[in-house]
Amino acid sequence: MATKVHVEMETEMNGNGRNGVPEMVKNSWKKRLLDFSGKMKRFTGCLWRTIWKAGREDPRRIIHAFKVGLCLTLVSLLYLIEPLFKSFGTSAIWAVMTVVVVLEFTAGATLCKGLNRGLGTVLAGSLAFLINYIATRSESVVRAVFIGAAVFLIGTAATYMRFFPYIKKNYDYGVVIFLLTFNLITVSSYRVENVLKIVHDRFYAISIGCAICLFMSLLVFPIWSGEDLHNSTVGKLEGLAKSIEACVNEYFNDPEIKENQDKSSEGPIYKGYKAVLDSKSIDETLALYASWEPRHSRHCYRFPWQQYVKVGAVLRQFGYTVVALHGCLQTEIQTPRSVRARFKDPCIRLAGEVTKALMELANSIRRRRHCSPEILSDHLHEALQDLDTAIKSQPRLFLGSKKSQTTSNMLALAAAHVARYKQEKDHGVSLASVKTESSAFLEWKRKRVGREEAKENERKALRPQLSKIAITSLEFSEALPFAAFASLLVEIVARLDHVIEEVEELGRIACYKEFNPDDDDISVTCKRPPVDVTKNQLPSHAF
Amino acid sequence: MATKVHVEMETEMNGNGRNGVPEMVKNSWKKRLLDFSGKMKRFTGCLWRTIWKAGREDPRRIIHAFKVGLCLTLVSLLYLIEPLFKSFGTSAIWAVMTVVVVLEFTAGATLCKGLNRGLGTVLAGSLAFLINYIATRSESVVRAVFIGAAVFLIGTAATYMRFFPYIKKNYDYGVVIFLLTFNLITVSSYRVENVLKIVHDRFYAISIGCAICLFMSLLVFPIWSGEDLHNSTVGKLEGLAKSIEACVNEYFNDPEIKENQDKSSEGPIYKGYKAVLDSKSIDETLALYASWEPRHSRHCYRFPWQQYVKVGAVLRQFGYTVVALHGCLQTEIQTPRSVRARFKDPCIRLAGEVTKALMELANSIRRRRHCSPEILSDHLHEALQDLDTAIKSQPRLFLGSKKSQTTSNMLALAAAHVARYKQEKDHGVSLASVKTESSAFLEWKRKRVGREEAKENERKALRPQLSKIAITSLEFSEALPFAAFASLLVEIVARLDHVIEEVEELGRIACYKEFNPDDDDISVTCKRPPVDVTKNQLPSHAF
Repeated sequence: MATKVHVEMETEMNGNGRNGVPEMVKNSWKKRLLDFSGKMKRFTGCLWRTIWKAGREDPRRIIHAFKVGLCLTLVSLLYLIEPLFKSFGTSAIWAVMTVVVVLEFTAGATLCKGLNRGLGTVLAGSLAFLINYIATRSESVVRAVFIGAAVFLIGTAATYMRFFPYIKKNYDYGVVIFLLTFNLITVSSYRVENVLKIVHDRFYAISIGCAICLFMSLLVFPIWSGEDLHNSTVGKLEGLAKSIEACVNEYFNDPEIKENQDKSSEGPIYKGYKAVLDSKSIDETLALYASWEPRHSRHCYRFPWQQYVKVGAVLRQFGYTVVALHGCLQTEIQTPRSVRARFKDPCIRLAGEVTKALMELANSIRRRRHCSPEILSDHLHEALQDLDTAIKSQPRLFLGSKKSQTTSNMLALAAAHVARYKQEKDHGVSLASVKTESSAFLEWKRKRVGREEAKENERKALRPQLSKIAITSLEFSEALPFAAFASLLVEIVARLDHVIEEVEELGRIACYKEFNPDDDDISVTCKRPPVDVTKNQLPSHAF
Repeated sequence: MATKVHVEMETEMNGNGRNGVPEMVKNSWKKRLLDFSGKMKRFTGCLWRTIWKAGREDPRRIIHAFKVGLCLTLVSLLYLIEPLFKSFGTSAIWAVMTVVVVLEFTAGATLCKGLNRGLGTVLAGSLAFLINYIATRSESVVRAVFIGAAVFLIGTAATYMRFFPYIKKNYDYGVVIFLLTFNLITVSSYRVENVLKIVHDRFYAISIGCAICLFMSLLVFPIWSGEDLHNSTVGKLEGLAKSIEACVNEYFNDPEIKENQDKSSEGPIYKGYKAVLDSKSIDETLALYASWEPRHSRHCYRFPWQQYVKVGAVLRQFGYTVVALHGCLQTEIQTPRSVRARFKDPCIRLAGEVTKALMELANSIRRRRHCSPEILSDHLHEALQDLDTAIKSQPRLFLGSKKSQTTSNMLALAAAHVARYKQEKDHGVSLASVKTESSAFLEWKRKRVGREEAKENERKALRPQLSKIAITSLEFSEALPFAAFASLLVEIVARLDHVIEEVEELGRIACYKEFNPDDDDISVTCKRPPVDVTKNQLPSHAF
């Protein structure tokens, strides 16, 4: 867009000063140059913003990048310093390779890969040595055939093994390394005399590489997967709390306020539960890596990663109910504002209590203490009872006998649509006894049947609206969607209990300290915005 | 278990024949041997089952394993055959390495990695050559420092770049390869005279490796990510259809039937939508790989992977509503069977129509033809209207004045609990005006406050039940949960429209053939059970 404006300005300037052809060529050159420099400026700005954003989102990324650079430099010294090179020779290259592929973002991932790599290398080295030992006794051609056959069989078997669920989950990387090392050693042994020496040197080089990686990731500014899992659980609880609050507020707000907030308030609800819904794979990866990590905190004796996965699963179940609650805001049939207003107070109170409970759970996990025994307060029960009373006090709501303004409007709209497409009606079906809104539905269906002749665009523009009529025109009692909303709220309270149960179990396993109301009063809650751990998971291209 | 029985039998036998110490030692040896052989037998059986299962789930895994074996053997010939070895030398090892890490399960993944690898290698080679060119002019120590600094800077910058979202999504593997190749060449160039020769040889070897991989994965029994994405979309639509059907059937079934089916029928509902909920990452991976694949089918001109991702997103939204519907089956407050029975027919008809529409969409995608114009039939509308009429004909349902059997039972239970814990009540709060069920809730809360002294186990056993009472004891009108159920069903119909829209868009983009009712009648539906594509995604440990 900026380019376009720029170009137009330039053209205008050129048009004003008519100075003959050479001047125009010069101007055209100038224009291109300006254009190019403008583009470069924008590109640099964009690049700078990307760099800045990546670092601000999670400063540990900068630390990790420096750690990788430092490790690579250290390992390069094996080549660059004369005495070290003499003892390792060209095998030192394997140490470099190891560092590039083993050093991961978190300590758990590095440990997992480092140990897998070690195991794979040792196994492959032994097997390759065995095969070489058998092969050396035969003559050259037989030996080549034997090696070829071994490569084929082991390659096929190892690849097939990668599909076994247990191997795939825990040792996939080890199998790849096994396959690689086995092939490299077996094949090169055909041309090299002393295989034992190759195996020996390579093993030492890889060990040095692994040792540097482990030292760096465990002792120099370590980044723990367990810590990330812990923080993401806290973040998910808080997100759900915010979602529920925003959802209920939006449901009972006036339409004017709602429209004003539309862009900003559609965000928080979705943002709150989004992280929960797609958390399965990230949780499992973090838990897998965390299971490799040694105890790194004085708070927990052994990191209860399995319990975190369980809490995650319960939160996902909880989250689906919140999505359904959000669905009530976007549904086609809406309960009129006037009806909603009658239930506003108990619903908002109920949601407030749920939010408070979720926040308390989040605080409990964050501060590694048991949750307050008053997590489910009297107010929750009172709000439930008020809601019950409010619903029972409105017996006529579910009868649907009183047509609201909205429904009548929709019916008028449906009638207009029917009138518009009356001329198309030449089918023999008698529609006399069918209601107006029903015929709108039939019209829409007929349009679908005869859509070959209908214009594509018109159809596209019309269809969603007609589909909406098809549902709204049914005189469902207005309070039906509100009943769904209320029922989902009650369901959320029920599911909250499962969440509390799993979080308490977590506290028990991880030996959280006892709840002390004074702690919370003192503590200053000046915290950084939560780090989005999902964005730190680099795909592990390995070996 | 089997071991234990075996051991016991052995012990009995020993007990019967008392033959002195030497015989006992012999027997103990025999026992151990038998024990061991039994264990081995079981292990072999288990291994065999795993091998068999992996192959039966998806026979393409066997093909892939053989392809990898064959590729490795082919590439080993560079070493094993004399003339080939003479022209490549030890660089041939890079071809072996390339095959191990580039050859992936699907053609798209192989292409993506192969091209990334090529790009990374070329860039790294050029940069390394440039740095070497600058470094050769200085003396040895300065050169070593210069190389060390370059390794540090490039290592840090490249690692940091991997966190940029765009790079991470598309070129992460390329950056790793770049980093690896750059380090290997730069560091080894310090000890080697002719760097250009290294770069040259390595490049050729990697090219040969890539060429073999691409040939194998594109031309020999190719496995397409696009095909998998296509099939998984069909499977998800069918799964949702089955879920809805099973859900509604279970909701209206008699409790006896339900209990009998409990173990088998809890399965289908969850199994149906499970694949949809966690499909985000797998969809995106498959779509990314599919975007690299060339046109491989005469049906579509360019694989519309983006539209498949959109369909997947709409299906996830649809799936969340199905989860909420399933939640109505497991909720704490249940609408009595007698009440449900009144709405059975319209609900089952409505669900049947939705199921039919979803199956039609699945068939449309499977057969690559547009969906039937009668996808939303009259019956759907009639069922909606019947449900509406049924709800309106039961005005007293939502009043909650008539206590059902279930609720009274729950109240009796609550009262019993209260009586049991009466002695603990010594707080000064006056409970006279609070109802029985409310005091049960208070009791439960008090137990939470005073849980330090309460026994852990007792609390664990009691809590879930009391929590259930806290919600069920509220006299919510019985029909409230049914209203939620009905409202969610209507919501599902509304969301179905979005699904139809995206699938039709898919048909338009992928140039599906026109709908012909005769085709469906002729076609024999003898199909294999769908392949679970999620299990084929091997983690891509690369380089």
